[in-house]
Amino acid sequence: MGDKEEFMSRVNDLYRFEAIQGHLGWDQETIMPAKGAKARGEILAWLASQRHDRLIDSKLGELITKLEDQNHDDFFMANVREMRRKYDEAVKLPTEFVSEFTKARSEALIAWQKARSESDFSLFAPHLESMVKLTQQKVEYLGCESTPYDVLLDEYEVGMTVEDYDPLFSGLKKRLVPLLSKIMDSNIEIPRLPEDMTFHVDGQEEFCKKVSNAMGFDFDAGRMDRSTHPFCAGLWPEDTRFTTRFDEKDPFSCLYAVMHESGHGLYEQGLPRDHSYSPVGMAVSLGVHESQSRFWENQIGRTANFWKIAMPWFKEEFPDCPDWDFETLDLVANEVKPDFIRVEADEVTYNLHIMIRYEIEKLIFNGGLQVKDIPSTWNKMMKDWFGIEVPNDSLGCLQDIHWSMGAFGYFPTYTLGNLYAAQLLQKMVEDLGDIDQIIGSGDWSNMLDWLRERIHAKGSLMTPAELIKSATGDAPNPEPFLDYVEKKYSKLYRL
Amino acid sequence: MGDKEEFMSRVNDLYRFEAIQGHLGWDQETIMPAKGAKARGEILAWLASQRHDRLIDSKLGELITKLEDQNHDDFFMANVREMRRKYDEAVKLPTEFVSEFTKARSEALIAWQKARSESDFSLFAPHLESMVKLTQQKVEYLGCESTPYDVLLDEYEVGMTVEDYDPLFSGLKKRLVPLLSKIMDSNIEIPRLPEDMTFHVDGQEEFCKKVSNAMGFDFDAGRMDRSTHPFCAGLWPEDTRFTTRFDEKDPFSCLYAVMHESGHGLYEQGLPRDHSYSPVGMAVSLGVHESQSRFWENQIGRTANFWKIAMPWFKEEFPDCPDWDFETLDLVANEVKPDFIRVEADEVTYNLHIMIRYEIEKLIFNGGLQVKDIPSTWNKMMKDWFGIEVPNDSLGCLQDIHWSMGAFGYFPTYTLGNLYAAQLLQKMVEDLGDIDQIIGSGDWSNMLDWLRERIHAKGSLMTPAELIKSATGDAPNPEPFLDYVEKKYSKLYRL
Repeated sequence: MGDKEEFMSRVNDLYRFEAIQGHLGWDQETIMPAKGAKARGEILAWLASQRHDRLIDSKLGELITKLEDQNHDDFFMANVREMRRKYDEAVKLPTEFVSEFTKARSEALIAWQKARSESDFSLFAPHLESMVKLTQQKVEYLGCESTPYDVLLDEYEVGMTVEDYDPLFSGLKKRLVPLLSKIMDSNIEIPRLPEDMTFHVDGQEEFCKKVSNAMGFDFDAGRMDRSTHPFCAGLWPEDTRFTTRFDEKDPFSCLYAVMHESGHGLYEQGLPRDHSYSPVGMAVSLGVHESQSRFWENQIGRTANFWKIAMPWFKEEFPDCPDWDFETLDLVANEVKPDFIRVEADEVTYNLHIMIRYEIEKLIFNGGLQVKDIPSTWNKMMKDWFGIEVPNDSLGCLQDIHWSMGAFGYFPTYTLGNLYAAQLLQKMVEDLGDIDQIIGSGDWSNMLDWLRERIHAKGSLMTPAELIKSATGDAPNPEPFLDYVEKKYSKLYRL
Repeated sequence: MGDKEEFMSRVNDLYRFEAIQGHLGWDQETIMPAKGAKARGEILAWLASQRHDRLIDSKLGELITKLEDQNHDDFFMANVREMRRKYDEAVKLPTEFVSEFTKARSEALIAWQKARSESDFSLFAPHLESMVKLTQQKVEYLGCESTPYDVLLDEYEVGMTVEDYDPLFSGLKKRLVPLLSKIMDSNIEIPRLPEDMTFHVDGQEEFCKKVSNAMGFDFDAGRMDRSTHPFCAGLWPEDTRFTTRFDEKDPFSCLYAVMHESGHGLYEQGLPRDHSYSPVGMAVSLGVHESQSRFWENQIGRTANFWKIAMPWFKEEFPDCPDWDFETLDLVANEVKPDFIRVEADEVTYNLHIMIRYEIEKLIFNGGLQVKDIPSTWNKMMKDWFGIEVPNDSLGCLQDIHWSMGAFGYFPTYTLGNLYAAQLLQKMVEDLGDIDQIIGSGDWSNMLDWLRERIHAKGSLMTPAELIKSATGDAPNPEPFLDYVEKKYSKLYRL
């Protein structure tokens, strides 16, 4: 076996272990019986160690070094590049450190759950301090060429640094805060759906599957199931599964979760199949993944033209529902309200929620902010930007799971997703013409084809920023997003 | 790490791969989207090769040899004994032979499906010839100390040979054929359920789950799903999953499938958890497994007293169903009819179906029967024993999947299951008293406890025959089964 073949064989094996972890993780979140949890945790830990052993094998390191100096096709060289990154990171972290981190994380997760449910930051604080300290240690192991927070940001969106994010976020803040305040001053009354109606789960399921199918999700190569928190997992070639949850009083909650997760699912279903079980065959980043989900959820789903198409499907399942017009539905789906919870936020306030997290993470890792001062810092920003007083930490700095998992640097990728989606939409309009007309035609295949060709089929051939540049002609930037929200919400709120 | 620890670590890893294969196999049969089949086949083949590489590792062989000469506790020594068997068999088969066999089997499976659907034996014959030839070669590789068929029988039920089976089957035939002919001559009219009734799937599911739960199946440590052919898989510690299928015209078909599979499931749920991921922690044999499923399906489920308990549950789901009395239901559930299809056979004819397959397999491997002569041999036996003419090979020698998979020697374990179940029932009555009264009380926990202690908790500590001897006091034999069927059916058919 030549070097090239041996490298690919090792990489494929590594990713087969990852795929099995993914499948058993999906099963755990959806259908596993309760008592199976202990054995599942054990087998997942075993799989992680099997994968890790293969990743830090010095023979793999030697192969990467050899192949880096050779010339092969772009897809192959992208695999070498990605494996270099993964290999270096893995060998830099001592095994004892990895287990210490894993252990601290399990404990922090449990403490966070308790702290959030009791809204008592002091229960979480010592664990958060550990996670911060261990993360600082991790940064040292990985080696820090610029600021410590840059090392963390790079983990979740390769190539993105504080220098890139700062102007993005300040640009957003500069235009979003005034927009928000204008919306708050407007006198638009948001209609309410009748409170006494109930929407049975079977009907919601049928309706949502019809929408997902119309988006192009292939149910012969995927599934929709239920879980506490919706998610999507591209388990295997031709087997992509997403989940949702149902609220009998609010059918829109499930709908937009399904459109969001189907957007992720379409990306997974469109990845280059010839490169399965290797990095270049995988989604390139969290930010780009989020751009696909947000595109379908917001730019397509939260429009009057979407409802023109979807309302008859909804009526098929719920013939007794009131005769809402499309404009009403559009307003209901796009209500703007400064509120406490990120995951329930509208398009205008969402990125401000992210920015609070970004600024606090930057302060922790680059500015010496103490864990004990997080709640007051958080609450002050909410007051300054949203104009609301955080009544308790459950509705404030305890709301998200990420820090308990040591996932510092993750949040900004959500904002990147929103920005990328707007950039893609702008370019798509240039290429395909009036988007409202396309949405209203009910045939969305040309939009999917466009995304397939420019995003999905590229896998991890380029870095995220290069991919966005190649797809839209522009580097990642906030202008298209700001133009989009200003135009959309000025019209909706008659500003 | 000492030898003992290294041995166990290797064994555990091997069985972790097996468990993953099991999980992905379960998923494939139940919920996998259609297009996922190709990737699933590939990953299962990869897992099989990962497992095989670990099994034939000479270091494992050395450890087994060392440990065989040492004294450790019974469970550990049973693991050494079982691994010796598996290791020896695996190293005796050349890798090329294993892949040739696997390839021929896939082709034979496809050919069999086509042959059966078109009822054309000639389409299957050349593939069946290959499977026979490869199996003969396998016997040579494994080494044959007595007859070739003995080598095959031993694969599926360790320790059982032609010398053991011949008297079992001739004993069965001697008393079952006259019993069958007396039943056929009787004038008992079997009542028919009304043909115009429909039993909705949700109600059947609720009812069947209630029955399974009453048997003791723990749904917090297991699931019931759907698949084309019902099966049970003890996937993980505390995660056992069985399947069923629904027929809206016939609620009993699903019920008895569920009782059968729940019986398998109870065995899996009762295995010694301290020995997970090692052979001694697994079910000891196909025959013993089948004894657990048949016990609940037939000895418990197909009785008037069972219906006394279950009818009110059935009525809850289907309040409009007629007021059948328990004796009527008993007769309906136990209709005896010489017919063509094994899987639909009653308790009296079932083992005669198995015996035909046993005799033909014996003739192929020990007597030189040619593949081309199988249909005529089969049809003659059906005529002689059942008194019926096989109209086509789909209803004859093409009905079962086993030969297409090269699983020669498997069928007799079904009969062992029936015999073991009757032996266990006989002993249980000695220990617990009148079984009809227990069934009619609705509290079946003492029966399950009895099986847990004597069968389930033993795992693979002993050989199947030793286990039956230790549980019942008697070696495997057909007398209790024959006494049981003669008594049961004489009463039902008033002979």
